[in-house]
Amino acid sequence: MTPVSKEVDARVRGSFARQTIMATLGAEIAAVRAGEVEIVLPFSDRILQQHEFIHAGAVATIADSACGYAALSVMLRDAAVLTTEFKINLLAPAKGERIRAIGRVIRNGKKLVITLGEVFAEEGGTRKQIALIAATMMVIETGAGLRD
Amino acid sequence: MTPVSKEVDARVRGSFARQTIMATLGAEIAAVRAGEVEIVLPFSDRILQQHEFIHAGAVATIADSACGYAALSVMLRDAAVLTTEFKINLLAPAKGERIRAIGRVIRNGKKLVITLGEVFAEEGGTRKQIALIAATMMVIETGAGLRD
Amino acid sequence: MTPVSKEVDARVRGSFARQTIMATLGAEIAAVRAGEVEIVLPFSDRILQQHEFIHAGAVATIADSACGYAALSVMLRDAAVLTTEFKINLLAPAKGERIRAIGRVIRNGKKLVITLGEVFAEEGGTRKQIALIAATMMVIETGAGLRD
Amino acid sequence: MTPVSKEVDARVRGSFARQTIMATLGAEIAAVRAGEVEIVLPFSDRILQQHEFIHAGAVATIADSACGYAALSVMLRDAAVLTTEFKINLLAPAKGERIRAIGRVIRNGKKLVITLGEVFAEEGGTRKQIALIAATMMVIETGAGLRD
Repeated sequence: MTPVSKEVDARVRGSFARQTIMATLGAEIAAVRAGEVEIVLPFSDRILQQHEFIHAGAVATIADSACGYAALSVMLRDAAVLTTEFKINLLAPAKGERIRAIGRVIRNGKKLVITLGEVFAEEGGTRKQIALIAATMMVIETGAGLRD
Repeated sequence: MTPVSKEVDARVRGSFARQTIMATLGAEIAAVRAGEVEIVLPFSDRILQQHEFIHAGAVATIADSACGYAALSVMLRDAAVLTTEFKINLLAPAKGERIRAIGRVIRNGKKLVITLGEVFAEEGGTRKQIALIAATMMVIETGAGLRD
Repeated sequence: MTPVSKEVDARVRGSFARQTIMATLGAEIAAVRAGEVEIVLPFSDRILQQHEFIHAGAVATIADSACGYAALSVMLRDAAVLTTEFKINLLAPAKGERIRAIGRVIRNGKKLVITLGEVFAEEGGTRKQIALIAATMMVIETGAGLRD
Repeated sequence: MTPVSKEVDARVRGSFARQTIMATLGAEIAAVRAGEVEIVLPFSDRILQQHEFIHAGAVATIADSACGYAALSVMLRDAAVLTTEFKINLLAPAKGERIRAIGRVIRNGKKLVITLGEVFAEEGGTRKQIALIAATMMVIETGAGLRD
């Protein structure tokens, strides 16, 4: 994957830092490349469902943001993105030391950006895919008053 | 909608209380009926995305759980449910005093339960739909060792 | 549901008549209301899957078009729609005398129209829901050269 | 990708031959590998939508079957599959000489098989991705009376 400019890197990380839910869940941005972003969420006892796996909603939260920031990484300066829909297939329980979402742009259209993401559970150096997400991002003009 | 027995009500609320992510986000269960469950999430500055709306992931989290508990409310004692997939369409920004997810069972199959949910933003007595979710729950035998 | 003007009715039915796949499958438009369209597909031995049920793809075809025409029924004269994504849950086998898809607009936005549809199998006066579809339509300007 | 046994190849192609909608649309099975199946649909004037592109429903039909047969290719002799849901993102208009759907198994579970598929438009030796599908297949015992 192509690296991004310092400007784009700062734009994505700055926007991520303003997503307060990420600090609440404990998620961190792990990589910003052109059209591909990684977010990591360490296991903690504050984000679980009833079987003590990480809640599907937390999996979806970092998967959605990884896809959204993958899209933002290829936007021009006067455009941002908003999620209009996503679908997530849960392949296996979200357990381990941490989960990692990787979002990628697969179609960069004028009005819509289509993204595909994978989420992995990581434990002791091994990695297992636990989810698959397909998300649509709507391109919005930032001149309209919305920040990134 | 049909009311549930005390036993089912306690089963759903007990499972919800074990989902630690709900306390982390500030969500509460608001109603348990046969095949229909409501979860409410008050606005707070800990669950936002970069434009200061409630993050789509938080919307998805309560929508998924409302659908899952709607399915659990119609399970027999020896069966529970796990989300296998959901798709969410985001219709409008999640803002206001609180959001409310209502999940309903639309097909109660032996192996799979199909659910449909709506999420509303509430503000000063008015209500606006902000999301639509369609989710598939897999029926699992609790004899297999999983609690509700 | 509100009836539509003759102009809108003619616009929707004219566009449907140009979808050659509908004649190939045997589908017909059954109702056009403001924001709601019905398409009917009679059972025939040309549209089946391997168990002799109507193929999920045929179910999806009429469900997608019912949703698309529901959206078109609320467009202004200089705007049309294209499907950008849909998700379909299959609830039961598609069998009987015919299937009927009903598409409805649930959010009429400037750039995107969100629709929800149901498909029923009909047999001897009874009706059973067999599928649920949620679809996103992108609004396009017909001045761009696309017909309805 | 691993080749399949003659038995599996015959099982998949035999089931495909019983899907009468495929002959109606003009689709043919192009490759059967372990966990991966390709279906090709030549452009014809019988399968179009109103702008004379191949209808999204026809795209979905071959994408769904490619995913279903990818799943069937890894089933044991006494198990078959049924689609329970799929979501398709349409990336570009379906035009050209033919479209080709490639379905792949990404998670082969006991009860559910999760698949991911891509659809390409082909024209004069070039190929462009036009759709992305994520589908869930339910495993069914063929002893229950259903053929493949």
